[in-house]
Amino acid sequence: MKEYFCSRLVKSEDLNHHGTLFAGRTAEWFVESAFIAAASTMGDPEKVVCLNIHGFVFKTPIKKGEIVKFVSKVAKLGNSSIVVHTRLDMELSHITPIEGFITFISVDENGNKISHGLVMDEAKDDEELKIRERAKKL
Amino acid sequence: MKEYFCSRLVKSEDLNHHGTLFAGRTAEWFVESAFIAAASTMGDPEKVVCLNIHGFVFKTPIKKGEIVKFVSKVAKLGNSSIVVHTRLDMELSHITPIEGFITFISVDENGNKISHGLVMDEAKDDEELKIRERAKKL
Amino acid sequence: MKEYFCSRLVKSEDLNHHGTLFAGRTAEWFVESAFIAAASTMGDPEKVVCLNIHGFVFKTPIKKGEIVKFVSKVAKLGNSSIVVHTRLDMELSHITPIEGFITFISVDENGNKISHGLVMDEAKDDEELKIRERAKKL
Amino acid sequence: MKEYFCSRLVKSEDLNHHGTLFAGRTAEWFVESAFIAAASTMGDPEKVVCLNIHGFVFKTPIKKGEIVKFVSKVAKLGNSSIVVHTRLDMELSHITPIEGFITFISVDENGNKISHGLVMDEAKDDEELKIRERAKKL
Amino acid sequence: MKEYFCSRLVKSEDLNHHGTLFAGRTAEWFVESAFIAAASTMGDPEKVVCLNIHGFVFKTPIKKGEIVKFVSKVAKLGNSSIVVHTRLDMELSHITPIEGFITFISVDENGNKISHGLVMDEAKDDEELKIRERAKKL
Amino acid sequence: MKEYFCSRLVKSEDLNHHGTLFAGRTAEWFVESAFIAAASTMGDPEKVVCLNIHGFVFKTPIKKGEIVKFVSKVAKLGNSSIVVHTRLDMELSHITPIEGFITFISVDENGNKISHGLVMDEAKDDEELKIRERAKKL
Repeated sequence: MKEYFCSRLVKSEDLNHHGTLFAGRTAEWFVESAFIAAASTMGDPEKVVCLNIHGFVFKTPIKKGEIVKFVSKVAKLGNSSIVVHTRLDMELSHITPIEGFITFISVDENGNKISHGLVMDEAKDDEELKIRERAKKL
Repeated sequence: MKEYFCSRLVKSEDLNHHGTLFAGRTAEWFVESAFIAAASTMGDPEKVVCLNIHGFVFKTPIKKGEIVKFVSKVAKLGNSSIVVHTRLDMELSHITPIEGFITFISVDENGNKISHGLVMDEAKDDEELKIRERAKKL
Repeated sequence: MKEYFCSRLVKSEDLNHHGTLFAGRTAEWFVESAFIAAASTMGDPEKVVCLNIHGFVFKTPIKKGEIVKFVSKVAKLGNSSIVVHTRLDMELSHITPIEGFITFISVDENGNKISHGLVMDEAKDDEELKIRERAKKL
Repeated sequence: MKEYFCSRLVKSEDLNHHGTLFAGRTAEWFVESAFIAAASTMGDPEKVVCLNIHGFVFKTPIKKGEIVKFVSKVAKLGNSSIVVHTRLDMELSHITPIEGFITFISVDENGNKISHGLVMDEAKDDEELKIRERAKKL
Repeated sequence: MKEYFCSRLVKSEDLNHHGTLFAGRTAEWFVESAFIAAASTMGDPEKVVCLNIHGFVFKTPIKKGEIVKFVSKVAKLGNSSIVVHTRLDMELSHITPIEGFITFISVDENGNKISHGLVMDEAKDDEELKIRERAKKL
Repeated sequence: MKEYFCSRLVKSEDLNHHGTLFAGRTAEWFVESAFIAAASTMGDPEKVVCLNIHGFVFKTPIKKGEIVKFVSKVAKLGNSSIVVHTRLDMELSHITPIEGFITFISVDENGNKISHGLVMDEAKDDEELKIRERAKKL
C-alpha cells in the first residue's frame, strides 16, 4: 500500500523536563501520521475515526534538533476497519526508535460504521509481508 | 495505591476536524496523566521515563465543552519498571470511554535503569485487584 | 463542597525566559481548574461563564519537571454567582505557592444571568470554614 | 509613563466551548502584556518577575475574529516593585471589556529582590492620574 | 496611515533547537501582525484574507527573553488589495532584524474579491514615503 | 535532489476566524518543512539557520479536515547558502495552492557562515530543471 510521510523538527515546545521529546507529543504525532494514511487511502477524512492505539515501545530518547520521520501505510483491512502501521525513523541516524499499529474505522455522517470498500494490494516486499502478518494477530 | 487526578476542559484547540476531541490529544493527555502517577509515586520526576504505551480503545467520541477526568494509579511494580493504569472518566455523564496501561522505568541521571525500591500496598477493593491481574498479563 | 483536582507536569512549552513556569500559563491553568469545579458543581459547562479573577500572589517560582496540582472547590454561592477557591499544591514538596478565588455566573443559552439553584453544604473542616469566610469578604 | 501595545487576533485555538475567547487565554495574554511594560520600563527582562495579579472583571464575551489590543503602562513604583495597569481595548468597537493591575518585582540573578531605581514621570492626563490613584489603594 | 503594534515576549515554546526564536514562529507572528493592520484599516476582519507574503530576510537571531515589537501599517492600496509593511523592532536594543510586505485582499462573504473603498492618506515622513515607493515596485 | 515530505491534518487549532487554515500557521509549517530538507541534505541540523523567505502566494483557502503535504527539495547551492523549494500539495484534490523558496545558510557553532561542501546532482526531470532556473533568478 502507498506510504505516507510526516517529518518533524523536534523543537523546544516538544520537550519534556528531561530535555528530550515528550512521550505524549510523540503519541500525538503518531496518531496524526497514522490518521493521514488511513484517511488518504480512504479518500475522505470525514469518514475516518480512530478506534484503537495498539501500543508501542519507546526504545530510545529523542533529542532537541532531531528530525523525525513518521512512515505510515495500511497493513490490514476489515469490512469497516483500517489498520495502519506507523514507524518513526530518525532522518539522520537511520534508527527506528518507535513503531506500532493504530486501527481506524470508516463511518457515515452520523458516526455509524460503514463498509469502506477498500482492498489490499500485493505486498511490495518481505518487510511489508511481515508487517501484514503482525497486523493479522492484533 | 494512591490515585492521581487530571481534569481537563475540552476546548477548540483540542478538536479534530469532526469537532470532537482529537485522538492524538487524548493520547498526549493520557501519557501526561500516567507519568504524573508514576513520578509522584517514585517521588522524583527526574528519574522516570516512559517505555511502553500498551494500547487503548476509543469507545465513544468526546465533545467540545466536556470535562474529562484522567484517574491514574500504579498497577504493577517490577525491579525498575512502574506500570500505571489510567482511565478517562467523563465528569458529568460518568462513563469511561478510554482506559489502558503505560509502563515507565526508573533511571539514573545518565538514563541507565535503576531499581526504584517501591513496593505495592494492599489493593483497596475488587476493582483494583482486577486491574492488577490485567497488569500482570501485559 | 466536592474538591476537583487538575495535576500538570511543567514542561518546556510552559516556561518563561527565566526557565520557570510562566505566570501567564499559571493563570490560564488556574482559570481552567476553577472553571471545572464551577461547571461540574453546576452540572452543565454550557451554563457557566467566568466573571471575575479576584487576584492571586505568586509566592515562589516553579521549576521545569515539577508536578503541580490545582485543587478547586466552591466557596460561596449567590443567586446566579458561583465563587470557586483554587489552590496550587506542589505534589512532591507539599507547599502551596498560589491560591485565590474566581467568580463564575450561570447563564442561559443567550448569555443572560439565571438562578443556578445550588446550595452550599456543611463545611467539612475548619480550613473550609476559613476559606468560606474569606469568600464572603470579596 | 510610556504605553506598550500588544494586539492579537482571536483565532480558533483561543476559544472556549462557548465559541468565545477563553478566560484562561485572556489571563495569559494579560500577564504577558503587563510583563512587557514592566520589563521594557526596567530595561532588562531578566530582572523582572511576576508577583501579584490583582484581579480583573470580564465585562463582556469576546468573539472569534475580534482584534483585541492590550494597552499597558506603569502605574506605581515601590523600591523594588513595579505596578502595571493593563486594559484590553476592542480595536474596532472601541469598548474596554477588561482592565486591571499586575505587580512585578525586580530581582538579581539569584532571584533576590533589588531596588530598581526607576522614578515616575508626570501623569500625562486626568485618566492616568486616576489610574495612579487606584494603584495606590491596591 | 495608522500604525499597529504587537509586542511579544520570546518564551521557551517559541524557540528552535538552536535556542533562538524559530523562523517559522517569526513568520506566524509576522502574518498575524500584518493582518491586524489590514483588518483594522478595513474595519472588518471578516472581509480580509491573506494573498501574498512578499518575502523577508532574517538579519540576526533573536534570543529567549527578548521583547519583540511588530509595527505594521498600510503601504499601498489597489482596488481590492491592501499591502501592509511590517517591521520587527527589538524593544530594548532598538535594532530591526526583519521587515517586509504582505498583501491582503478584501472579499465578500463568499470569498469573492470586492472593492474596499479605502484611500491612502498623506505620508507622515520621508521614511513612510520610501516604504510606499518600495511597495509600488512589488 | 532528494525530496522531503511533511503531511499534516488541518485541525481546529490551525484555523483563522474564517474557519480556514490560518496563513500564519501555513507560513510556520512552510518554514519547518523547508528547514527539514536543508538540514537533512546538510546532515546536521545544528549547522543550518534560516536566512530568507522569498515570498509565496496563497492561491486558494484550505479547509478544516484537509490533508496538506509539503514537498521540499534543494534547488540551488551557493558556497554557504542552501536554497530550498517547497510546494504544498493537497493530498486528496491534487492541487498545489502554495509554493516558494526559502534560503538557509550553514554556520559553525558560533553562528559564523561556513562552506557546506554540498554539490547539486543531475535534475531528475524538466520540472526540477525549471525550479532550478527560477532559484537562480531569486
